[in-house]
Amino acid sequence: MLSDSVVEGSLPNRFRALWDEIAPVGRDAGSGGYLRYALTEPELELRGWFRSQADRRGLPVTEDGNGNLFAHWGDPEAGDAVLTGSHFDSVPHGGAYDGPLGIVSAFLAVDELRAAGVTPGRPLVLAAFVEEEGARFGVPCLGSRLLTGALPAERAAGLRDAAGVSFAEALGDQPAGARPDLLGRFGAFVELHVEQGRALVEADEPVAVASAIWPHGRWRFDVLGEGNHAGTTRMADRRDPMLTYAFTVLAANKEARLRGAHATVGRVAVEPNATNAIPSKVTGWLDARAADPETLTGLVDAVRGKLAERARRDGTEVTVTEESTTPLVAFDGGLAGRLATLLAAPVLPTGAGHDAGVLAGHLPTAMLFVRNPTGVSHSPAEAATDADCAAGVRALARVLEELTCR
Amino acid sequence: MLSDSVVEGSLPNRFRALWDEIAPVGRDAGSGGYLRYALTEPELELRGWFRSQADRRGLPVTEDGNGNLFAHWGDPEAGDAVLTGSHFDSVPHGGAYDGPLGIVSAFLAVDELRAAGVTPGRPLVLAAFVEEEGARFGVPCLGSRLLTGALPAERAAGLRDAAGVSFAEALGDQPAGARPDLLGRFGAFVELHVEQGRALVEADEPVAVASAIWPHGRWRFDVLGEGNHAGTTRMADRRDPMLTYAFTVLAANKEARLRGAHATVGRVAVEPNATNAIPSKVTGWLDARAADPETLTGLVDAVRGKLAERARRDGTEVTVTEESTTPLVAFDGGLAGRLATLLAAPVLPTGAGHDAGVLAGHLPTAMLFVRNPTGVSHSPAEAATDADCAAGVRALARVLEELTCR
Repeated sequence: MLSDSVVEGSLPNRFRALWDEIAPVGRDAGSGGYLRYALTEPELELRGWFRSQADRRGLPVTEDGNGNLFAHWGDPEAGDAVLTGSHFDSVPHGGAYDGPLGIVSAFLAVDELRAAGVTPGRPLVLAAFVEEEGARFGVPCLGSRLLTGALPAERAAGLRDAAGVSFAEALGDQPAGARPDLLGRFGAFVELHVEQGRALVEADEPVAVASAIWPHGRWRFDVLGEGNHAGTTRMADRRDPMLTYAFTVLAANKEARLRGAHATVGRVAVEPNATNAIPSKVTGWLDARAADPETLTGLVDAVRGKLAERARRDGTEVTVTEESTTPLVAFDGGLAGRLATLLAAPVLPTGAGHDAGVLAGHLPTAMLFVRNPTGVSHSPAEAATDADCAAGVRALARVLEELTCR
Repeated sequence: MLSDSVVEGSLPNRFRALWDEIAPVGRDAGSGGYLRYALTEPELELRGWFRSQADRRGLPVTEDGNGNLFAHWGDPEAGDAVLTGSHFDSVPHGGAYDGPLGIVSAFLAVDELRAAGVTPGRPLVLAAFVEEEGARFGVPCLGSRLLTGALPAERAAGLRDAAGVSFAEALGDQPAGARPDLLGRFGAFVELHVEQGRALVEADEPVAVASAIWPHGRWRFDVLGEGNHAGTTRMADRRDPMLTYAFTVLAANKEARLRGAHATVGRVAVEPNATNAIPSKVTGWLDARAADPETLTGLVDAVRGKLAERARRDGTEVTVTEESTTPLVAFDGGLAGRLATLLAAPVLPTGAGHDAGVLAGHLPTAMLFVRNPTGVSHSPAEAATDADCAAGVRALARVLEELTCR
């Protein structure tokens, strides 16, 4: 049996062997980061790998018509299944672990359960969700939003990548959209994910259970000034939108620190963006996140206020547009507590969105985090030791056994 | 005679008629600004117009092998000639007046002199310099730098535009480079230019004489931080180069105001420039100008100091690169005083570079400025009334008569 060979060696070694199979796929030699955009060649190769891994373990694979893949240990038509998995796609030059770790760990957890002779009392389903990062079509958690109906199929079909290819074209068909029939068969979802911060480093623990996803959103601020010659225009005659932008960057940082929240301005667009020209327009994007909606609103209102005040001083005009907001996602408290006790693991909130955040509105959902020594994510510096990844697999296997058997 | 029809009507009307001939060439319907890049179709059309205007006036046209055009009233081979003119090329979405006003005014000044029965005692030469803005090949005053030898022909030949076309390819030949034979025939240069500020508006005068071009330069500052996830990275764990950049923008503005100098950060590049990513790198370009080299050095040193201080606070790393500097150009003081007395016009410095600044190192050179009601330049808002343009033509004609006859 192939599955016998799969479980040979120590778990960290088996993790490493499986991990090395996908490590080269979509890696950029220059940055060392990954370019695994949804439904492009590297991600399609990883989807093929998912099918071959399921095949080696005798797990039939189904699709949901939205680009999400499922491998079934148990009857695919049966209800009350326990779902686990994550995504293959990456941000541009992203890290190796964000997404794939949850899928690789799911296969290894199946091996652990089988090696221990566990026969699940409920079906177990392994998932690979499509376009979680939104790096290709602009909408994060696209696959889970389609499955749950949070995003209508017609809207998703028409989303286009930078080259003008639509999601429907990339998928090879119109997306199926909401699948309540399928969703109704899942009784719980557990997503294992690399930690995107340093809390587990400081806690000296390899694995944590998630409590919540902070409410967060994106606000675009367009600052209009007066384009002019940098050499000849007196300082007093200027209406320079770059000053308003710069002040807002610093104000957002200060206001977030004051509130224990997160604020980032990581994206800017300048017109005409020439060395010898005072810009006519500067656009910034504020990413803001906080533990609760009141703090988030207070933060964004404070930044808006500072922006308006500075615009008056600079003689510029400002409009602020809320591009997206995501409310607080509190994971199932009973489930999180049960898993934390089972694993003797700490419970942490996170500032990042995940497919688990989308599914949490529809079924009992939990997340496990694996320690990241650098605390860095969405970057080639993202990391996890093989030992910690093995600890993550063991934790996931225990959770899946608990949920499917008890 | 064609030249008779040329001088009919009031001077403002004749200015308008001639101006309207070139007004549509290279205008972008969207912005209302001009896309007249050197040796591209619109600028080639304007060069053809230059030849036809010279032809109408019986002025033979020569080229210098570098892309600069000359129309001769008098023997092209004779020495001690008085040169006047400017350039046709524009910055992206630039204004109508910056450059072309000096060429159109030169033709109308010839008409004025002829109508007044003036016979110049020295040859008069009208010039259209190539690539003054540097918008296509990246080097401002390319034509005058080649003519004077300030830029070697081999270096100019290899400069490439955004599409990869070299200057030599655009020119249709290797540039000739320094032409001391030709330069030696010029005894003086006068460039008429729209004012790029509001000093003449405040002085309530239509025309001024230039005293000097401020020393100026460009400094690139690269700020390296740590790319990371905007949602999950605690504020205390960040090394965010956007903060260092923003602080530097505000510091440059403040330090320039304190010194009566000019500082602008109008260009920025961000990696990866994503809403949900703390940038790994932010690059800004500082454009700084001041009345004297000491003030300029003091300004740039102060900005460097603030940048280094803030980088320590942000945990970022900074390198500052001087990309270019241009020393103070003091126009011929005797000539400027003589022309200011002749025209009863104020004398002003400018912060902008011009072909006159390049030629000033080789022959007595002067500039005339025409009032700009908006004070804006390098933008579609750049303006001048027909009455002020006519006053500029009259002033230029008086100056040319003074220089060629007295």
